[in-house]
Amino acid sequence: MDTNAPELGVGLVGHAFMGAAHSQAWRSAPRFFDLPLTPRMRALCGRDPGRVAEAAARLGWESTETDWTRLLTRDDIDLVDVCTPGDSHAEIAIAALDAGKHVLCEKPLANTVAEAQAMTEAAERAAANGVLAMVGFTYRRVPAIALAKQLVDEGRIGEIRHVRAQYLQDWIADPAAPMSWRLEKDKAGSGALGDIGAHIVDLTQHITGDHIARVSGLLETFVHERPLPSPSSGALLGGTSQDGGPTGHVTVDDAAVFLARFGGGAVGVFEATRFATGRKNAIRIEVNGSLGSLAFDFEDMNVLHLYDAQEAAETAGFRRILVTEPTHPYVGAWWPPGHGLGYEHGFTHQVVDLVTAISKGEQPLPSFADGLQVQSVLAAVEHSAETGAWQPTAVPVPA
Amino acid sequence: MDTNAPELGVGLVGHAFMGAAHSQAWRSAPRFFDLPLTPRMRALCGRDPGRVAEAAARLGWESTETDWTRLLTRDDIDLVDVCTPGDSHAEIAIAALDAGKHVLCEKPLANTVAEAQAMTEAAERAAANGVLAMVGFTYRRVPAIALAKQLVDEGRIGEIRHVRAQYLQDWIADPAAPMSWRLEKDKAGSGALGDIGAHIVDLTQHITGDHIARVSGLLETFVHERPLPSPSSGALLGGTSQDGGPTGHVTVDDAAVFLARFGGGAVGVFEATRFATGRKNAIRIEVNGSLGSLAFDFEDMNVLHLYDAQEAAETAGFRRILVTEPTHPYVGAWWPPGHGLGYEHGFTHQVVDLVTAISKGEQPLPSFADGLQVQSVLAAVEHSAETGAWQPTAVPVPA
Amino acid sequence: MDTNAPELGVGLVGHAFMGAAHSQAWRSAPRFFDLPLTPRMRALCGRDPGRVAEAAARLGWESTETDWTRLLTRDDIDLVDVCTPGDSHAEIAIAALDAGKHVLCEKPLANTVAEAQAMTEAAERAAANGVLAMVGFTYRRVPAIALAKQLVDEGRIGEIRHVRAQYLQDWIADPAAPMSWRLEKDKAGSGALGDIGAHIVDLTQHITGDHIARVSGLLETFVHERPLPSPSSGALLGGTSQDGGPTGHVTVDDAAVFLARFGGGAVGVFEATRFATGRKNAIRIEVNGSLGSLAFDFEDMNVLHLYDAQEAAETAGFRRILVTEPTHPYVGAWWPPGHGLGYEHGFTHQVVDLVTAISKGEQPLPSFADGLQVQSVLAAVEHSAETGAWQPTAVPVPA
Amino acid sequence: MDTNAPELGVGLVGHAFMGAAHSQAWRSAPRFFDLPLTPRMRALCGRDPGRVAEAAARLGWESTETDWTRLLTRDDIDLVDVCTPGDSHAEIAIAALDAGKHVLCEKPLANTVAEAQAMTEAAERAAANGVLAMVGFTYRRVPAIALAKQLVDEGRIGEIRHVRAQYLQDWIADPAAPMSWRLEKDKAGSGALGDIGAHIVDLTQHITGDHIARVSGLLETFVHERPLPSPSSGALLGGTSQDGGPTGHVTVDDAAVFLARFGGGAVGVFEATRFATGRKNAIRIEVNGSLGSLAFDFEDMNVLHLYDAQEAAETAGFRRILVTEPTHPYVGAWWPPGHGLGYEHGFTHQVVDLVTAISKGEQPLPSFADGLQVQSVLAAVEHSAETGAWQPTAVPVPA
Repeated sequence: MDTNAPELGVGLVGHAFMGAAHSQAWRSAPRFFDLPLTPRMRALCGRDPGRVAEAAARLGWESTETDWTRLLTRDDIDLVDVCTPGDSHAEIAIAALDAGKHVLCEKPLANTVAEAQAMTEAAERAAANGVLAMVGFTYRRVPAIALAKQLVDEGRIGEIRHVRAQYLQDWIADPAAPMSWRLEKDKAGSGALGDIGAHIVDLTQHITGDHIARVSGLLETFVHERPLPSPSSGALLGGTSQDGGPTGHVTVDDAAVFLARFGGGAVGVFEATRFATGRKNAIRIEVNGSLGSLAFDFEDMNVLHLYDAQEAAETAGFRRILVTEPTHPYVGAWWPPGHGLGYEHGFTHQVVDLVTAISKGEQPLPSFADGLQVQSVLAAVEHSAETGAWQPTAVPVPA
Repeated sequence: MDTNAPELGVGLVGHAFMGAAHSQAWRSAPRFFDLPLTPRMRALCGRDPGRVAEAAARLGWESTETDWTRLLTRDDIDLVDVCTPGDSHAEIAIAALDAGKHVLCEKPLANTVAEAQAMTEAAERAAANGVLAMVGFTYRRVPAIALAKQLVDEGRIGEIRHVRAQYLQDWIADPAAPMSWRLEKDKAGSGALGDIGAHIVDLTQHITGDHIARVSGLLETFVHERPLPSPSSGALLGGTSQDGGPTGHVTVDDAAVFLARFGGGAVGVFEATRFATGRKNAIRIEVNGSLGSLAFDFEDMNVLHLYDAQEAAETAGFRRILVTEPTHPYVGAWWPPGHGLGYEHGFTHQVVDLVTAISKGEQPLPSFADGLQVQSVLAAVEHSAETGAWQPTAVPVPA
Repeated sequence: MDTNAPELGVGLVGHAFMGAAHSQAWRSAPRFFDLPLTPRMRALCGRDPGRVAEAAARLGWESTETDWTRLLTRDDIDLVDVCTPGDSHAEIAIAALDAGKHVLCEKPLANTVAEAQAMTEAAERAAANGVLAMVGFTYRRVPAIALAKQLVDEGRIGEIRHVRAQYLQDWIADPAAPMSWRLEKDKAGSGALGDIGAHIVDLTQHITGDHIARVSGLLETFVHERPLPSPSSGALLGGTSQDGGPTGHVTVDDAAVFLARFGGGAVGVFEATRFATGRKNAIRIEVNGSLGSLAFDFEDMNVLHLYDAQEAAETAGFRRILVTEPTHPYVGAWWPPGHGLGYEHGFTHQVVDLVTAISKGEQPLPSFADGLQVQSVLAAVEHSAETGAWQPTAVPVPA
Repeated sequence: MDTNAPELGVGLVGHAFMGAAHSQAWRSAPRFFDLPLTPRMRALCGRDPGRVAEAAARLGWESTETDWTRLLTRDDIDLVDVCTPGDSHAEIAIAALDAGKHVLCEKPLANTVAEAQAMTEAAERAAANGVLAMVGFTYRRVPAIALAKQLVDEGRIGEIRHVRAQYLQDWIADPAAPMSWRLEKDKAGSGALGDIGAHIVDLTQHITGDHIARVSGLLETFVHERPLPSPSSGALLGGTSQDGGPTGHVTVDDAAVFLARFGGGAVGVFEATRFATGRKNAIRIEVNGSLGSLAFDFEDMNVLHLYDAQEAAETAGFRRILVTEPTHPYVGAWWPPGHGLGYEHGFTHQVVDLVTAISKGEQPLPSFADGLQVQSVLAAVEHSAETGAWQPTAVPVPA
């Protein structure tokens, strides 16, 4: 850590799952990486004064706010990190950018393409003034994924023909699992499609360096009524559960599947579901090219499988690369070979890349425009599911 | 082997890859299983007298024919086993059934739905006279697949929600791989779709006990011109290859992908390709149900993975079942636990099931009607790929 | 199959597990390989006339004998295949060789070093007359094992430093599993050590091309009394089981473990057990050399793992080689890539190699001398377990 | 984090690999766990003033010392964390305990049994005054390992019969890898045996709840001369390397293997090596019991494999338990299911357990006595390797 490095004041909005992961990243990045700017964890923002104070102490923030607009007027804050549910991303991010604050915004960028467009426009306005915005597709920073992209860029697998990607979870496979805001379209925007499908759209496009051009999709909600978490959650009230308790309507998809055609001609098959019993966080990606193949599964996240078709047939085979060598992306800053990293390290690497880009005045990636493009793919899937026809993914021109 | 069992005279048409596999099955089945009828390998049929004589000696057939219609008039032949390319299945199988011979016909049943319908009608006529027909979806007889079906039937994984199936090969991923009859629509009917896609359609329907109701598909031919195997193969002549040699037109699909909706509501994702570099014969099937999941990969064919969601969360996990116990389907006839079987054993089990059904006068499964139904799914995929719209898979009523 | 090839008349002694495996091999080898001699399955020998007749019909033998000495006087028999328990190997094999018959003898070569020495001497006498002997360490002929040896021979893993080998089974892990002849020292010679430990001694020496020079071992019998299979088995009578039934004394080891020093300096760790709950037939071998490593597990028998230390660190990793390519040892005779073989194929390959060597008048491998050397390693382990000290494995010079 | 919790002042000696890992643990533990005492990172100690200042800033320590004895006189320091090489453990730890400071000491406890005995005596004296000592066998705190112990304690695998454990690395498999203090007996005490063999001794004893009673071992140094890292490292000077540069003598073992007999009768096989080409940090442990088995490999550290022999044979198989459920040990404090942890989390869990024990005035585990017992096992292995005979592991009574 360069103790002479200038500071970067950070304000974080939200302190649930994502807030905790981002906090660990802001704390840890300067401990392991030489950053050109030293992050200062200035303020944590949450609606409930007591809970935000407790969270700030626990997560290591210097002060608290209960109104996010307060962050925009504080001089000691250079960057706003947005970890709220998707329905508030646009409002916060646009205001922060317009106030001259850099922004890191959790994915999906927004709940609608229109919001994402507005955010992208705000990001472009801000960039003209040296204010930068990034969307948090953290899995890009898992070393095995970064290595996969590097190998594709180096031409190791040749021309890409097949992409198959699955994001499989099972946390609501049981019909008795209760309602939550993630199952309400108003708050979450969509279900498996936006929550986890967004990741595999971003990851496969990132690894291949290509974009999905058109899609044919299907959305499914297997369980339409779920028990409410407590009787007081009246807003969701919809019916009566098997054991007589009140239930709520699920208004998002439980699963989303789609075929895809990439711009470069590759054929894609995608699946995102919360009903894959026994799969907990299985992000499985396989890419087949003319010279080789790559395969990854987040449930074994320190490993990348590589097949090199140019090896002699007698000894060719998928190599299980343990992505823990000092020469692997991000790994040199951590532990010796064979000492694996975990889920949270991707967030730390995200901070490293973001801070480095800000220091250089360069656009951090993925940009809001990238987030918008992912959003347009998701919208095309939804549209296709409604119409039963293939849909192009081009970002619609705003009226 | 019951040496007093009546004999079943068999005539086999075709002696290439499938002919060799069927021959090993006819030879081996009575050595390991107690069959109610003892197969006699009466005659092998092939066009070239010299080659069929050599093959008959090598494969263990008592006599040869060079005209398949001869088999139909021989009294010592009770069953005709059809191992020719798909374009001759209908003619041979229908004639054999009409001549009162039982028929085992390799998959896919035929190259067109119309042929498959005619074959099914012939099978129904024959059945009225106690003459039986079966189509050879051999992979059903891999013990791990048979166990998967059994577990689904027993309700072990509950209501089925997701089916994902891939049949991945790479034998023509290299553009320099030469033309063959399998790449010509006239002879092969279709490419990856009919050759290997047919298997995963059959297997997933078999395991789940459900039918695919509608599909949305995409077919792709990545390489349109390939070098001819030799200059004399003029019939295929189409152009000039990179190194100046003559090339032929590929007229079938290299890859087929499709979404599927099963009758019972499950969501399916299917992929069949000959361009999955590094995957040699990867038949990968995963089924997620409300109470558990099953997963299989033919590249590790003696294993079935089972997840039981009713186990305590602390010790739940996919079990790697080594399907080599004497109580597993078919396994008791072979070796002790842990001593795995190979590809060819499925063919032996097919003979066992077929001979047993014939002995009892019962319909062997899969029937020609089952083969027709698979054909109708493939046709719907092709149709969907042309129209860009979802297609029902119902078997069209013949005019 | 070359129908003009001379015949090789075979007589088999024993028709239990090994007899069935050998029969399938004699039947199948000429169907898939071009053999210079065509095996004729002339006679099956067993003590009980009724049972041997049934077995001969089932397994495909032309005639039967109830006294193995009869095989030695039959002119139509060129080779005697010995599949009896170990206590009769020496007597049968020596007599057969002295009678001018080639011999294939199941492993372990004998129950004692003295017997193995006598057999080796008989083999040497016979060889002078062109009569050949081979011991059946079949696992050498699993393609993945044959490939491992080939890669070591080619120098792909450099100088060998570590050998770790386990043969893990669990068929008597349950104390309620009944007595059998395999648990009696008189008949079986030893327990896990001789039955399965012999295989990993042979395999590791075969793969590395080196010999074990000295050992430090430990033998263990976890369960000393077991229920008798039936009340009439009085010979074993030893005590009373938990549920009051008669029990028998186990007089062999349940497990054998030993350290080994190879002649070339490599360090070995070996473990053979019938008490590895959940492991059915796990022959696990890993060899680490200065330039790479190899790993194998029979429970995934069509796969060999290779690590090449000369690859760049960024993309180095154990390759999962699917040993099903036509260029892999033995594989070209069978099925296309990805279509795996099973347990029994090793026996077929053994027949191929044996028949080829006989045809050429060359010593088939492993020879009886090789079998004796393995026996001397096992004896050294037993001796070490008794004395608590390291023991050399040199074959004792007969008095 | 309980902001009202009393503080625990910590001083850390050493800031290399282990110092960095411990620092991350002290920083992170209170962020994710509710600790009864809040650690304050008071002082980092290192010999070089400039380097320790840089490290303190980077790692988050409030002050620095260049003489560890200074830590003992500071009132703001309650605990001394010893992360130096093994040759200074005894001196620092004993002095710290005698000065009334709690001690966390990295493993192995010491370089000799005599030192470890003195440390254990110091720990016992200190405990009488409420001052506590713990040795850092961190891998006990990997959730999968903690779950393994829990399952054994619950009787899930019954009576234990087999333990096989390997700790495989390859960082000096290349003879060109340079000398380091870890290869000098004076500083490191021993090589693979003490550095990594100590871990598998501790882990297997911890999981089984049993102790190793006697051993038969073998130590090997494959490469005796290595190039010096730089010409100035004269102290190590020993010869001349292949390319003519100066070399140093390796005075420790490259590999250690041993057989073990546990007190309860289980048979153990152990292997620790730095020459297992391709294995980076493979801590592989398998335990077979009368009712089931457990298997673990640190290269897939979020997974534990469990075989339950009481399941029906048809569906029995090793379960791949993803140890990421909230009910798994330590996991509830972190991320949702399927979001794995990394190497460093074990250190954080160690802090949690240590701080909790100190708060309660209870002995934290593993104690110095536990460390001494592991040391006595290692000494017995060394002794056995010298004598060629089995050695008991009993801790020698001090004179």
